[in-house]
Amino acid sequence: MPMQTLKWQDDALILLDQTRLPEELVYTTYRDVEAIARAIEGLVVRGAPAIGLAAAYGVVVGAHVAVDCTPETFCRRVEAAIARLACTRPTAVNLFWALDQMQEVLAANRDRDNHAICDALLAAAHRLFEEDRQICRQIGAHGAALLRDGSQVITHCNAGGLATADYGTALGVVYAAQEAGKKVAVFADETRPLLQGSRLTAWELMQSGIDVKVICDNAAAVVLRNEAIDCCIVGADRIAKNGDVANKIGTYGLAILAREHDVPFYVAAPVSTLDMELASGAEIPIEKRDAAEVRQGMGKPTAPDAVPVYNPAFDVTPGDLVSAIISEKGVARAPYEPALRAWVEP
Amino acid sequence: MPMQTLKWQDDALILLDQTRLPEELVYTTYRDVEAIARAIEGLVVRGAPAIGLAAAYGVVVGAHVAVDCTPETFCRRVEAAIARLACTRPTAVNLFWALDQMQEVLAANRDRDNHAICDALLAAAHRLFEEDRQICRQIGAHGAALLRDGSQVITHCNAGGLATADYGTALGVVYAAQEAGKKVAVFADETRPLLQGSRLTAWELMQSGIDVKVICDNAAAVVLRNEAIDCCIVGADRIAKNGDVANKIGTYGLAILAREHDVPFYVAAPVSTLDMELASGAEIPIEKRDAAEVRQGMGKPTAPDAVPVYNPAFDVTPGDLVSAIISEKGVARAPYEPALRAWVEP
Repeated sequence: MPMQTLKWQDDALILLDQTRLPEELVYTTYRDVEAIARAIEGLVVRGAPAIGLAAAYGVVVGAHVAVDCTPETFCRRVEAAIARLACTRPTAVNLFWALDQMQEVLAANRDRDNHAICDALLAAAHRLFEEDRQICRQIGAHGAALLRDGSQVITHCNAGGLATADYGTALGVVYAAQEAGKKVAVFADETRPLLQGSRLTAWELMQSGIDVKVICDNAAAVVLRNEAIDCCIVGADRIAKNGDVANKIGTYGLAILAREHDVPFYVAAPVSTLDMELASGAEIPIEKRDAAEVRQGMGKPTAPDAVPVYNPAFDVTPGDLVSAIISEKGVARAPYEPALRAWVEP
Repeated sequence: MPMQTLKWQDDALILLDQTRLPEELVYTTYRDVEAIARAIEGLVVRGAPAIGLAAAYGVVVGAHVAVDCTPETFCRRVEAAIARLACTRPTAVNLFWALDQMQEVLAANRDRDNHAICDALLAAAHRLFEEDRQICRQIGAHGAALLRDGSQVITHCNAGGLATADYGTALGVVYAAQEAGKKVAVFADETRPLLQGSRLTAWELMQSGIDVKVICDNAAAVVLRNEAIDCCIVGADRIAKNGDVANKIGTYGLAILAREHDVPFYVAAPVSTLDMELASGAEIPIEKRDAAEVRQGMGKPTAPDAVPVYNPAFDVTPGDLVSAIISEKGVARAPYEPALRAWVEP
C-alpha cells in the first residue's frame, strides 16, 4: 500500500483527493469542519470505513478551532461539528458509528479542560484509525482462506486501501491472499457513474503489483460466463441484521449475475458496518446523488442537458444472494441473524 | 423523427455524425469509400440496419468514383469497395446482408455500361433504405401490441431512428405505441463505454416527446425491482437460428436481470438480422474494441494509462432468456428455430 488515504499531521487532517485519481496524486490539508464535511460530500474521501475515520478527525478539527472558547461553547461547537459531519452522507453506517464513538469520548471527558478534551478526541480518532488498519488485515486473513492460488475475482467499486485507513476490505482479501503466496487476478468493474473501479481500484491494485483488468459494468455478465471466475468480492456501506447489504449501485445486479453463473458472492466489511437495529435492507436510507454525475460525469456532456436522470448511489442486495460475509470476526453464512448477532455481542 | 440518420444527396452519402451527439448536430458528406469505411469503424454511423444502409450507399460511392474507368476496372473497383466495407465491423450481419444485395445487383447488371450500373446500384441502395423505413414501422406495429397504455420500458444502447433509416427497431415499438395512443415511459441504460443510451436514445426520445430517464447500466437491477417495469426491449446485431441474440455488451446481463424480476425481455430486429447459417450464438464473431474507449471514453482519463482492459462490443444472450423476437413478419416465441425459419423462407 504505497498511498495513504488520510492522515493527521500538524494539527490538521490531510486527505488524498480521490476525485483527482488516477491523473493526479494530490493531498489536501483541512483545518475546518465545513471543508471536511464538503470533502466527504464531494467524495474527496469515500468508502464507508474511510468516511468514518475522516469524520472522526473532523471532530478533532472542530475541537481544535474552538479550544480557546469557554468550556460550554467549546462543547457546543464540538457537538455542532458532530452534527454537521453526520449530515454528509446517509447510507454508510460507519460514519454514524465513528461519530457516536467521538460523542462518547466527549461525554466521558466533559469535566476536563478544553486541551485535555482535544487530546482525548485525537487519541480516540487515532485509535479508530489503528483499529481500522488491524481490522482490515483480519478481514483479509479470513477472506484469503476462501481464495485459491490462481483465483480470478470480480470486484465492484473500490473497497480497497483508498476506502479505509490503508489496506481495504474486499481488496484486503486480495492483498492478504497475495501476501500468503496465492496469485489472484482481479476484474475491476469500472463502476459508473463515478468510476471508482477504473479510477481507484485499478490504480491501487497496479501500485501493489496485482494483475487487474478493467471492464465496463456491462461486461461483468460475459466475464462471469466466459472466464473462470472464482468469486465476486465487494465491500459494504451498511448491513442489516438479516444479511441484506447496502453497497455501491450495481452490487445487487452483480450478485444476481454471480448466482446465475454459480459463482460465490462475498461481502467483506468490518463489524462497524453492521446495523443490527435494522430488520432488513428495506430500512436502509439510500442516497440519491446529482444528475450531473451521470449527465457529464467525465467533465463533458454525455447526455442531453435537460434529460431526467435516476441516480441512486447505492442499492440493497438481499442476504440470500450473499454467499458469505467476511469481517474481522470471521466468515458468516446464512442464516445471517444469529451469526451477525454473535459478532456484535460483547 | 426530426433527424435523419443518413441520406443520399448530390451524388454523395451524408451521415449524421453520431459521435458528436448530443452536443452537436453535424452532418458530414462522404464521396470516398475509405472515408465511409472509417466512419463505420469509428461509429459516425452505427446500429446494425444503419450500418447496412451506409455500406450500400458506400458501394454506390465506390461505383461513382470509378465510373470513367474501363468496364473491367470499374467492376473490380466496385468489388474492392464491397470488400473494404465488409471489413469494417464483424458482428452485425445486416452489413454483409446489404453488401450481398449490392453484389447481386452488380452481377445482374455486369453487361451494362458503367453509368447504368451506377444507376442500378443507387436504385438498390434507395430500395434498401425505403424497405428499412417500412420494416421498422411494421416491427413497431407488431411490438406496440405487446405494450399497454402507461407501460414502462427499459432499453439498452440505441436501437432507434439513429440505428436505422429513421424509425428504429426497439424504439420503433415505442414510437408505434405512442402513435397508437399509448403512453410509454422509457428508462434508457446509458450503455458504457460509448454511451449510446444517454447520448443517442435519450436525445431522440426527447426529440419525439417521449418520457425518458437515463440510468447508469448499474442501476437497471434496482429499476427492475423498484419500478413497475413492463418489459425490456432491445435491438440485435445478429440472431442465430436457435434464437441466440448478439447485441450491445450488457444485453446478456440485462436479460438475466429481467428474468430474475419476471419482466419480459423482447428483441426487435428486421429479418435481415437473422443468420440462419449459425446453429447458435457461440458462432457469432464478437468485435473487441479499443481499450481507449474504456480508459478515456469521455476524452479524459478515467483509468490508469497502462491498465489492461477487456472491451467486447457485444455479447450473446441465449434464446431461452428472450421472451419474444419481434420482426416485420410478426412476433416469434420459443422454440425459435421453426418460427425464424418460417420468416426467412420464400
